[in-house]
Amino acid sequence: MSWTKKHLLDIESLTAEEITTVLDTARAFKAVGERAIKKVPALRGKTVVNLFIEPSTRTRISFELAEQRLTADIVNFSADASSFKKGETLKDTAKNLEALNADFIVIRHSASGAAHFLSRVVKSSIINAGDGAHEHPTQALLDAFTIRERKGSIAGLNVTILGDILYSRVARSNIWALTKLDAKVTLCGPSTLVPKTFEQMGCRVTHNVDEAIRDADIIHLLRIQHERQRKTMFPSIGEYTNLFGLNKARLAKTKPDSLIMHPGPINRGVEIDSEIADCSRSLILEQVTNGLAVRMAVLFLLNGGKGPGEVIS
Amino acid sequence: MSWTKKHLLDIESLTAEEITTVLDTARAFKAVGERAIKKVPALRGKTVVNLFIEPSTRTRISFELAEQRLTADIVNFSADASSFKKGETLKDTAKNLEALNADFIVIRHSASGAAHFLSRVVKSSIINAGDGAHEHPTQALLDAFTIRERKGSIAGLNVTILGDILYSRVARSNIWALTKLDAKVTLCGPSTLVPKTFEQMGCRVTHNVDEAIRDADIIHLLRIQHERQRKTMFPSIGEYTNLFGLNKARLAKTKPDSLIMHPGPINRGVEIDSEIADCSRSLILEQVTNGLAVRMAVLFLLNGGKGPGEVIS
Amino acid sequence: MSWTKKHLLDIESLTAEEITTVLDTARAFKAVGERAIKKVPALRGKTVVNLFIEPSTRTRISFELAEQRLTADIVNFSADASSFKKGETLKDTAKNLEALNADFIVIRHSASGAAHFLSRVVKSSIINAGDGAHEHPTQALLDAFTIRERKGSIAGLNVTILGDILYSRVARSNIWALTKLDAKVTLCGPSTLVPKTFEQMGCRVTHNVDEAIRDADIIHLLRIQHERQRKTMFPSIGEYTNLFGLNKARLAKTKPDSLIMHPGPINRGVEIDSEIADCSRSLILEQVTNGLAVRMAVLFLLNGGKGPGEVIS
Repeated sequence: MSWTKKHLLDIESLTAEEITTVLDTARAFKAVGERAIKKVPALRGKTVVNLFIEPSTRTRISFELAEQRLTADIVNFSADASSFKKGETLKDTAKNLEALNADFIVIRHSASGAAHFLSRVVKSSIINAGDGAHEHPTQALLDAFTIRERKGSIAGLNVTILGDILYSRVARSNIWALTKLDAKVTLCGPSTLVPKTFEQMGCRVTHNVDEAIRDADIIHLLRIQHERQRKTMFPSIGEYTNLFGLNKARLAKTKPDSLIMHPGPINRGVEIDSEIADCSRSLILEQVTNGLAVRMAVLFLLNGGKGPGEVIS
Repeated sequence: MSWTKKHLLDIESLTAEEITTVLDTARAFKAVGERAIKKVPALRGKTVVNLFIEPSTRTRISFELAEQRLTADIVNFSADASSFKKGETLKDTAKNLEALNADFIVIRHSASGAAHFLSRVVKSSIINAGDGAHEHPTQALLDAFTIRERKGSIAGLNVTILGDILYSRVARSNIWALTKLDAKVTLCGPSTLVPKTFEQMGCRVTHNVDEAIRDADIIHLLRIQHERQRKTMFPSIGEYTNLFGLNKARLAKTKPDSLIMHPGPINRGVEIDSEIADCSRSLILEQVTNGLAVRMAVLFLLNGGKGPGEVIS
Repeated sequence: MSWTKKHLLDIESLTAEEITTVLDTARAFKAVGERAIKKVPALRGKTVVNLFIEPSTRTRISFELAEQRLTADIVNFSADASSFKKGETLKDTAKNLEALNADFIVIRHSASGAAHFLSRVVKSSIINAGDGAHEHPTQALLDAFTIRERKGSIAGLNVTILGDILYSRVARSNIWALTKLDAKVTLCGPSTLVPKTFEQMGCRVTHNVDEAIRDADIIHLLRIQHERQRKTMFPSIGEYTNLFGLNKARLAKTKPDSLIMHPGPINRGVEIDSEIADCSRSLILEQVTNGLAVRMAVLFLLNGGKGPGEVIS
């Protein structure tokens, strides 16, 4: 099917077919990234503003490279050096960017709903690069792309997401994407961070890590946010590592072809054993590579591309 | 007439004909900004350095987009991450940029005269993006462009500038541009911020806001700088809003076709009522759009373009 | 001879022939910098990441301009806004950049050996833009280029390096380059900062500045790092200036055609008298201009260029 959406705000409102169109288009762009000349002129003369009102390095760089490889004009706007100190509202900032004829605004913001809000107030296409604890749709798309590349398809797979689910936009977007693509999703972590209410999203919830990973095809680890500890959501980093960290002993009890994912940056020795992060079953760096292809695909489709057949590779 | 100047340092030294050449050229570039592909190759292979020794978001982004749409190579140099901490002088910094074959240096600096100084020490073309309380010439040019677009011409119009005139480079550049183009300029604000000496620039000065705006065709509001209050230039923000803020009651007493301008970022509820900022008589966002076209025109002319007839659109 | 190396990590491991190939290639690129259109498409579609984990303005800008003039895609990654705060290791950061298909990583880092380390862990070409007190190879190459341009050749010249040798990567890279090219190198400065052990690198060491500069063809001044004073490596800035600063009286006792160099940014009135910095014997700004050409040459050669014959100028 051909793409018609103007914004990428979340995974919740995408159909399985739309997700699949992104993944198919990303496959074509992945080939572009492997060439000596990694550019296509699809966004030549278009203006993309990266509006990062929350610190980010890897997502910002990934978007920026995707935009460059599509030959867009790019302006970076981050909070610290900005009018935000002077008290301008987010709406006024966005209206200003619209007045500068920004074709795309890629927004990361600490407030859930920021991307949806922008899509209602400006004519530019909005891409959500993470909004509060709500969604991080390109992360879920790159994760789905990575799983599909390695496992052939997603339907019927057991995917376990392990960690701080409650506050994780990565988890939320992944749950939407994976359940729409008919995976069986299990959530696991400390009970304070993985409430039973997530069962309403179609997931299994367990607080027993061995049970959670035993039958998993994919073990998706989330980054432990140290600040949660101070809020007493879990007793200590060491305790978390003991109870939920992925180590050799735990991995030995999983299926022999289970694969490990993590959105990065990883805390070696905390949620993941250092050796496991680097082993052949770890897809962590493939996720990074695929993220670039997925973001190129998203920009391409929102710019009027219909699907993978139009990518010149 | 055709353009011959190498630098844009101020409005004071421009003739009415030169100002008009910029506005006519900007009109041609405004059309470029509305196309799907918003680029022309006029500055291909030229190097522009944005030397911002004072924080700025909107002006920096506007220049950066203008430069990109002219296909220049761009380097951003801002104070915080810079050699300034190590104590290098502004002259040495500029001589270094010249040694790197910078064709243009766009400078914003907290010291009045910084742009003139650079034009005397380096061979690069200098564009003043705001120097202390002295001038902000591209702001005045974009304001004049916006007025001319809406009102047809500037000669004979009543323009009232309202706010902190004394410390405002925006006000100073606007006064030069508007009086050269034969508008009648009225200045208004607290007497500490709008001294009578401005009458020497050919303006009417009043401290009575109702009188100032009654016959105005254009009401140009300046941003209230909160730090002035601490310096006791005016009693309080609330007091300023009561006495000089543009609200519905005041606007109702002006001419029915009066238009409202503001250089941004606006303080909603301080110098301007929130509803008025968004009403159809507000030109605030048009100013932003026009700023990009004006900055493209300035770069194009300083690069050897003669006038609007040479713009490929 | 034609270039074969993949990385530029140091001068120590280069042969005299390799250094000469860089200098010859840089000569061709210097001509490009003087043209109206200062671009060549040699790195079109290639991705360069500037990974600056230590503050820098001039080196970063010089690299960035070199990359732009070669038409590369560029991403800037500096420490303050980065994942480093979240505790990701340098290796993990580099592996992520490799996963994004970075063709080149230009790294500046406060730890000696950082560039070598990266070259062992990722497939990207690594350029050392300064690592701790170890090496700063492009600085030494631009210094050698500048000397050769002015003096015709380097063999047999007396070059005196004056200042904080012990902690200076600039000194170390220059010593390697100059001795490989058969210059006679003298080191001078306070005994705490210029230990006798440097004689093992083939240099003469003296703590008497008049003796050090008497027969010098080139006097290379290093920047005084104010923080050394606090560590009591020398008594005070004023004392350093008196004992080792280059002033008119001292310069008068040198050869009439001696030339003065400094990597910048200079401390006027500290290690160099202000007038001397600006006199016709000062090569300080030529070094800046040549730095750009040398960095273009390095990127060009590491990208598979064989030598100066291939530069389209």
